[in-house]
Amino acid sequence: MDEKDKDLGITVKKSENFSEWYQQVLTKSLFMDYTEVSGCLALRPSAYAAWENLSRAVDAEFKKEGVENVYFPMLIPEKFLNKEKEHVEGFAPEVAWVTGAGNSEFEERLAVRPTSETIMYPSFSKWIRSWRDLPMRYNQWNSVIRWEFKHPTPFIRSREFLWNEGHTVFATEAEASAERDKILGIYINALKDYFALPGIPGKKTDSEKFAGAVASFSVEHVMPDGWAIQGPDFHLDGQNFAKAFDIKFLSREGKTEYGWQNTYAISTRELGVMVATHGDDKGLILPPKVAYIQIIIIPIYKKENGGNIIEYAKKIEALAKEEFRIRIDMREGYSPGFKFSEWELRGIPLRVEIGEKEMADNRARLVRRDTGEKIDVKLEEFSEKCRSILERMQKDLYEKAKEFMESMVKRVSTYEDFKRILPLGGIMQAGWCGNAECEKKVKEETGAKITNMPFDQGVLADRCIYCKMPAKSMANFARSY
Amino acid sequence: MDEKDKDLGITVKKSENFSEWYQQVLTKSLFMDYTEVSGCLALRPSAYAAWENLSRAVDAEFKKEGVENVYFPMLIPEKFLNKEKEHVEGFAPEVAWVTGAGNSEFEERLAVRPTSETIMYPSFSKWIRSWRDLPMRYNQWNSVIRWEFKHPTPFIRSREFLWNEGHTVFATEAEASAERDKILGIYINALKDYFALPGIPGKKTDSEKFAGAVASFSVEHVMPDGWAIQGPDFHLDGQNFAKAFDIKFLSREGKTEYGWQNTYAISTRELGVMVATHGDDKGLILPPKVAYIQIIIIPIYKKENGGNIIEYAKKIEALAKEEFRIRIDMREGYSPGFKFSEWELRGIPLRVEIGEKEMADNRARLVRRDTGEKIDVKLEEFSEKCRSILERMQKDLYEKAKEFMESMVKRVSTYEDFKRILPLGGIMQAGWCGNAECEKKVKEETGAKITNMPFDQGVLADRCIYCKMPAKSMANFARSY
Repeated sequence: MDEKDKDLGITVKKSENFSEWYQQVLTKSLFMDYTEVSGCLALRPSAYAAWENLSRAVDAEFKKEGVENVYFPMLIPEKFLNKEKEHVEGFAPEVAWVTGAGNSEFEERLAVRPTSETIMYPSFSKWIRSWRDLPMRYNQWNSVIRWEFKHPTPFIRSREFLWNEGHTVFATEAEASAERDKILGIYINALKDYFALPGIPGKKTDSEKFAGAVASFSVEHVMPDGWAIQGPDFHLDGQNFAKAFDIKFLSREGKTEYGWQNTYAISTRELGVMVATHGDDKGLILPPKVAYIQIIIIPIYKKENGGNIIEYAKKIEALAKEEFRIRIDMREGYSPGFKFSEWELRGIPLRVEIGEKEMADNRARLVRRDTGEKIDVKLEEFSEKCRSILERMQKDLYEKAKEFMESMVKRVSTYEDFKRILPLGGIMQAGWCGNAECEKKVKEETGAKITNMPFDQGVLADRCIYCKMPAKSMANFARSY
Repeated sequence: MDEKDKDLGITVKKSENFSEWYQQVLTKSLFMDYTEVSGCLALRPSAYAAWENLSRAVDAEFKKEGVENVYFPMLIPEKFLNKEKEHVEGFAPEVAWVTGAGNSEFEERLAVRPTSETIMYPSFSKWIRSWRDLPMRYNQWNSVIRWEFKHPTPFIRSREFLWNEGHTVFATEAEASAERDKILGIYINALKDYFALPGIPGKKTDSEKFAGAVASFSVEHVMPDGWAIQGPDFHLDGQNFAKAFDIKFLSREGKTEYGWQNTYAISTRELGVMVATHGDDKGLILPPKVAYIQIIIIPIYKKENGGNIIEYAKKIEALAKEEFRIRIDMREGYSPGFKFSEWELRGIPLRVEIGEKEMADNRARLVRRDTGEKIDVKLEEFSEKCRSILERMQKDLYEKAKEFMESMVKRVSTYEDFKRILPLGGIMQAGWCGNAECEKKVKEETGAKITNMPFDQGVLADRCIYCKMPAKSMANFARSY
C-alpha cells in the first residue's frame, strides 16, 4: 500500500449505498479478498481470527454440554446422498461433483459435502447398538460447498463456507427436543458476547424448513438495509434420517427402536453480518473480543527522536501484551495521519498515540474506534483503562445493534400497512393463519417471506394479515438475503 | 456393544502381527472407523480429541512466533495448478477433480486441494507490494485430498487427511532460512509433549524433496515393525513459486525483488504413529495430555448398594472435573471386569475402581493403563495423585518410545552389514557420497530409501556405503511407509 494510492478509503456512504459500501469495506480493510473461484473467498487474518474466536467460544460451550467433536470425510458417495428423499431434492441442484482423480474416472461420482448427514449416518447406524450408547452427541467443524447463487456475495451468499455441524441421536423425542434451547442459547450468547450481534430466535414455517427435517428453528438478523438474514439454526429431524439410514437401538425394555435426531449449525456467514452491522463510513469496526489486533500503537516522531519514542512504544507494548493482542506500527515512510486512517479502515478497536509530549508526561492517548473518543491515560493505569474501554466498546456495539434491530421490527395489522411499510425496510410482524397458501401469496405479491415465528410472540393478532381468517401465530415477514 | 459379543478384544499380538494388530486396535478401541469412501476415515471422539489437542498446542506456538491463520478455498482452478512445473508433475496424478455442479459441467475443472500453494500464491502476489508488507507468515488448518495409494492404511496412507499448511514470504533468503529451526522445533516439542513421540530431524535428499521446493527437511519416526515413516516437514522454496506466481516486492532500496518462501506441515498421520507406538496387546494407550477421557471411574457394587457407590463416584468426579477430563461408567448390565477390559482397550490412561471397601475407607484405587500399576489413594489427595501419575505416564511413554527409536538406529559401515541388518528392521545409518545414483541403486537392491540426513551427524564415515567414494554426509536409510 502506498500513501499516494488513491481510493484507499471507502468512497461511498453506508447509508447511501449499502451494497457498494459492504463490498468496499470487506476488501479495503484487508478482511477478505476474492479469488479466481467465484463464490469462494480468501479469509485474511482479520476475518479468520474473528471466526476462530467465535467458533472456539461455541466449541467450549458445546464441550461443557457433553457434545464431542469428530471428523468425517468431505466426499460422499452419490448413493448415500440419495437415501433421504427430501434431503437429496433440497441439495442435489447445488452439489459439486468429483468424477475422477488423476487420469481415471470413478465408477460412482462423489459429492463434495454440502452437509454431512449422508456420510455420517451410515456410521451412526453401525455404531449404535443399545440404549447404553445414547445419547450420541457429535459435532464437526469443517468447510462445505453449495454451488448456488448466480451472484455470490461474500459471506452472505458464498459457495464455500466454514461452519459447525452438530449431529445428535437420542433415545426419546423428549430428550431430542430438550436440546433445542441449550444449543440455540449457546449460539445466541456467543453471537452477543463475541460478535456483538443480537438476533431473533423463532420457528421456521414448513415451507422454509431444512430439507429432511421435521421442524427448523433459526436466529434471524436484520441487516443495515432492512433486509433479514438467517443466522444459526437448529433442526429437529425426528426419525426421518434414522429410518432412511437405519439408525436403530435396543431399548432398555428390549425393543428395537429408531433414534431421534437433531442437527445444528453456525457459519462464517456471521462474519458478513458482523461487518455489515458495526462498520461505518471510515471502514470496518471489529468487536474487541474478536479483533485480531485489539490495540495498535502509533509512535509519532520527527526523525531525530524516533529511537526514544519507539523505545517508549515497546515499553507500553510490554506492559499490555500478556493481556491484549497489541502491536506497534513501526513502518517507516508513512505519516501518522496515514496510519490513523489505515487502522481505522481496518477496524482496530483502540489506537494508542504517543509522541514527545506523551512520553515526557509518562502518558498515552487512547482513541476509541467506534466513537472517536480520546482518553489520556497515565502509564501505570494503561492496562486497566484499555480493559475497561474495550469491555465498554464491546457492550456498546451490542446495544447499538440491538436498538437498531428492535427499531426494525414493525408490528403491522393491515395488509395495506404491510405493503406500505415493507419498502422502508425491516421485519413486518403480523398475524398468520398458518396456511402455506397465504405465506406464498404474500411472498409473490411483496417479496417478503416468513423469516420465522418468533419465540417471543407478544400479543397474538386476531386475524391473518393476508386472508383475515383467525391467526394461529405471529410471524415475522421480511425480504431476506 | 454387548458383553456376549465375541472378538471385542485384540486377537493378535503386536509383536507377532503388527499390521493386523494395528488395524484391529484402531477400530476396536473406537478410535476411528472406515467409511464407504476408500482411504477416507471417520475420526471418532478419541482420535479427533487427540488431534485437536496437538493442533491447538502447535497453533498456540505458531501464534507466539507471529504466524497468522487464514483460510483459502478448497477448490483450485486447473490453470493455477499448472503454473509451477515440478509442483504440478508431483501432484497431478493424485488430484481429485470437480468437473461440475448440480446438472451443469464447468468450463474449467477444479482440483480439490492436495496442498494450497497454487490457490494462495495468486493472492499473495496481489497483496504484497513493498518490504513493509514482509514478512508475511500465514498458516491454515484444513483437510486435503490426495487420491493415491492402491491399498490405503488408516492415517499412515490416507486419501484425505487433516493438517496445517504454513506458507510464508520473506524479503531475504537469510530470514527465510532462519524460520526452519523455529518451526521444526515447534513440531518436535509438540510431538514430544502431547503425543509422547520422538523423531529424527534432518534434511531430505534432492530426489525425496517436496515437488517445487529447493530443500526439504523432515522429522522421521520409527514404527514398531522397524519401518520408518515421515512426520512433519519444512520446505525452503527459495524463489521458485515466487517466480511462477509473480510474488514481487519493492525493496527498501527501491528495487523490485522476488520473495523467499517456506512451507511446512504436520498432519493426522501422527495419530497413526501415536497409536502404533504406544499401544499394547490389550489395545490403545492414549498419552494423558491428549486423551479425550483421562480418568474413568468404575463403580463396583451389588444391586442393593448401587446408589451409595454411585454417589461416592460422583463426589470423586466433582473433586477432579475442573482439572481432568473424567467420566463415570454408569452403564447398567455390564460387569466391572467387562468395563475394565473395554476401557483398557480404549486406552484411557487412568482407571479408578471404587467399591464398598474403598468407600468405607474414603479411598480410591487407581490403575495405570500402561504399566497396570495399582495405587490406593485417600480422597483428599485424589487430584494431586492423579496429576503426578498422569505426568509420570506422559514422560514414561516418551522415554520408552525414545529408547526404542534409538535402539533402531543402526550404524553400518559395509554394504554387506547393511543388507544383513536391514531385514531385522530399523534405520541403517551410513556414509553417502551425495550421488543420486547410489541412493537409487540402494533402493532398487534393498528397498531402503534415504529418509533423511540427520541434523545430528555424529562421526562422518569415510566412504559411501554403496560406491566407496568419499562420503559427504551420514544418511539414514530405511524401508519407509
